[in-house]
Amino acid sequence: MENGKDANTSPEGANCRPAFGWAARDTSGVLSPFNFSRRKNGENDVTIKILYCGICHSDLHCIRNEWHNAIYPIVPGHEIVGVVTEVGSKVAGFKVGDHAGVGCMVNSCRSCHECERHLENCCPGMVLTYNATDVDGTITYGGYSDSVVVEEHFVVRFPAGMPLDRGAPLLCAGITVYSPMKRFGFDVPGKHLGVVGLGGLGHVAVKFGKAFGAKVTVISTSPSKKQEAVERLGADAFLVSKDPDQMKAAMGSMDGIINTVSAYHDIVPLLSLLKTHGTMVMVGAPEKPLQVPIFCLIGGGRCLAGSNIGGIKETQEMIDFAAEHNVAADIELISMDYVNEAMERLAKTDVRYRFVIDIGNSLHAA
Amino acid sequence: MENGKDANTSPEGANCRPAFGWAARDTSGVLSPFNFSRRKNGENDVTIKILYCGICHSDLHCIRNEWHNAIYPIVPGHEIVGVVTEVGSKVAGFKVGDHAGVGCMVNSCRSCHECERHLENCCPGMVLTYNATDVDGTITYGGYSDSVVVEEHFVVRFPAGMPLDRGAPLLCAGITVYSPMKRFGFDVPGKHLGVVGLGGLGHVAVKFGKAFGAKVTVISTSPSKKQEAVERLGADAFLVSKDPDQMKAAMGSMDGIINTVSAYHDIVPLLSLLKTHGTMVMVGAPEKPLQVPIFCLIGGGRCLAGSNIGGIKETQEMIDFAAEHNVAADIELISMDYVNEAMERLAKTDVRYRFVIDIGNSLHAA
Repeated sequence: MENGKDANTSPEGANCRPAFGWAARDTSGVLSPFNFSRRKNGENDVTIKILYCGICHSDLHCIRNEWHNAIYPIVPGHEIVGVVTEVGSKVAGFKVGDHAGVGCMVNSCRSCHECERHLENCCPGMVLTYNATDVDGTITYGGYSDSVVVEEHFVVRFPAGMPLDRGAPLLCAGITVYSPMKRFGFDVPGKHLGVVGLGGLGHVAVKFGKAFGAKVTVISTSPSKKQEAVERLGADAFLVSKDPDQMKAAMGSMDGIINTVSAYHDIVPLLSLLKTHGTMVMVGAPEKPLQVPIFCLIGGGRCLAGSNIGGIKETQEMIDFAAEHNVAADIELISMDYVNEAMERLAKTDVRYRFVIDIGNSLHAA
Repeated sequence: MENGKDANTSPEGANCRPAFGWAARDTSGVLSPFNFSRRKNGENDVTIKILYCGICHSDLHCIRNEWHNAIYPIVPGHEIVGVVTEVGSKVAGFKVGDHAGVGCMVNSCRSCHECERHLENCCPGMVLTYNATDVDGTITYGGYSDSVVVEEHFVVRFPAGMPLDRGAPLLCAGITVYSPMKRFGFDVPGKHLGVVGLGGLGHVAVKFGKAFGAKVTVISTSPSKKQEAVERLGADAFLVSKDPDQMKAAMGSMDGIINTVSAYHDIVPLLSLLKTHGTMVMVGAPEKPLQVPIFCLIGGGRCLAGSNIGGIKETQEMIDFAAEHNVAADIELISMDYVNEAMERLAKTDVRYRFVIDIGNSLHAA
């Protein structure tokens, strides 16, 4: 058995090819070099040489087993961008040399009502890009690695003009905010959008909001973020959520809110910001249940919704829209061997706004 | 000063006319005969001789000051049906002898964004039918009385074929469930609608659901309600919410849920009944905040919404639809002097499903 490789969970024998990445082996979450295998490119598969991979906060939750579902060793990463190196005989949409991306999922049942509606993200048989059991019984490994083999349906075309490094986070953070903005009609010029929290998700939500022609107000506990929200990201306004006077003055002013906060918080003042029939969409998932006084929803006929990434068709639409409107993440590009330090900083939200690993230039086989 | 009349809050002098009803005078909520006055019919007004008035649970909350906003004496009642006895010179839609109804509100600002969108129910200047301060500074008195004078805009035409007594509760209970069913798309044949709680609101929701062509499942804590839900009201299925096996089997099966329960309860098992992108609408308002684990909303992209009656245009549409589809409330018709006993029974939910007071035949001036 190779270094850390578990022969029971990787593809084996003639059907596999060697792969290399960094994996967490236990709840410390510390990542280190890891040899494993991936399946050979099948007739519907696309093989991608990975150039960049974003670090999502869920990577950190997962490798530390904070969601109590870790299958070690874990190679995290679901904001994967690279260049196509091989395509199967039945692949029509990609050719060798294309730029392509892979987001949070690599498979689904393809036949349920959700899959038929292009909502593979809601398919009961959806297979996550890492730390999940694929249809062949092997465990999926993510993008902190040199290559990935994915069925064509789950590969996203990267349009010309979309920077590969700054585009990588759109595959998770981008679609997570774009999808509910479309679904709930926040994508209309002149709408007033609130964005709660200015991290990896929030900063992209501001950019999409502005690209849609909305008025965007950032709502944050930190007054210190006002300057970057307005000057760097182009938000129209900024509210300090701890300031009751500011919040009161903005009551009933917003058509929709994207709430990216994953810590427990009081949502009543946030719901009060919504206009009649407004919707607040939770894309961050606080561990503890939130307290919802129902009169806050009944008055004004408001909605509290949740949303979880998006389907593949919409992910493609999102990337194309982003390329057309110069939307990409603000990132800090790091080398592979900086990843553990980056995780420590991420735990303290010390990043503006997404770490992206320069896999192509810094991942070297041991 | 007449019996219980407060000269400061009723119309006075030449501009008023005598009225008679039953009022609560204190937090006991006990109702007794009450002489007061209403304004004379203005040029935009319709005067209605009241024949029937439904008893809504909010009447009970209000007269006992359980919402801490009582302005005694209170003449409750906002499910008012009667016959037009006078119309103002500018009234175009009603003539003497017409059957007409008045629901939960009698005024709004008529100029805000909500009013422009026919959502007078969400207008900040909306005036409730009783226990509210009208635009002229007088206090509004409801339908447990002999007559009411209301601006034409807030009067609903009662179509031929709609029974006046069984139609009265539609003016509150009916529009409260109809409006969200329309807004959230539960009104499409083949949809699967869940109705939580089988009281005044719930039993009408079942009837509208069936009239829309939906499959309707009633969800209740009481197994004893199965027979009436299915046999009497025509529900397609019945779930006992306390039975985990039944609830588990129904997971992910419903497009939408109308939740009429106003007591604190665990909504997680109910949210689990929703399909992907399903919505549960709260029309009952539990006093204590509900606990909402956000992962229940994020998984499947579900919504928790609130809704509060509906606008006048939609109320008219609802009554017309109900008349066309033979939807009306199941009622127990009572005489005025039974009202205090009815309130006691209502507090114990001992009614199937709505008390309606036979004002025309049983309200006699003292």
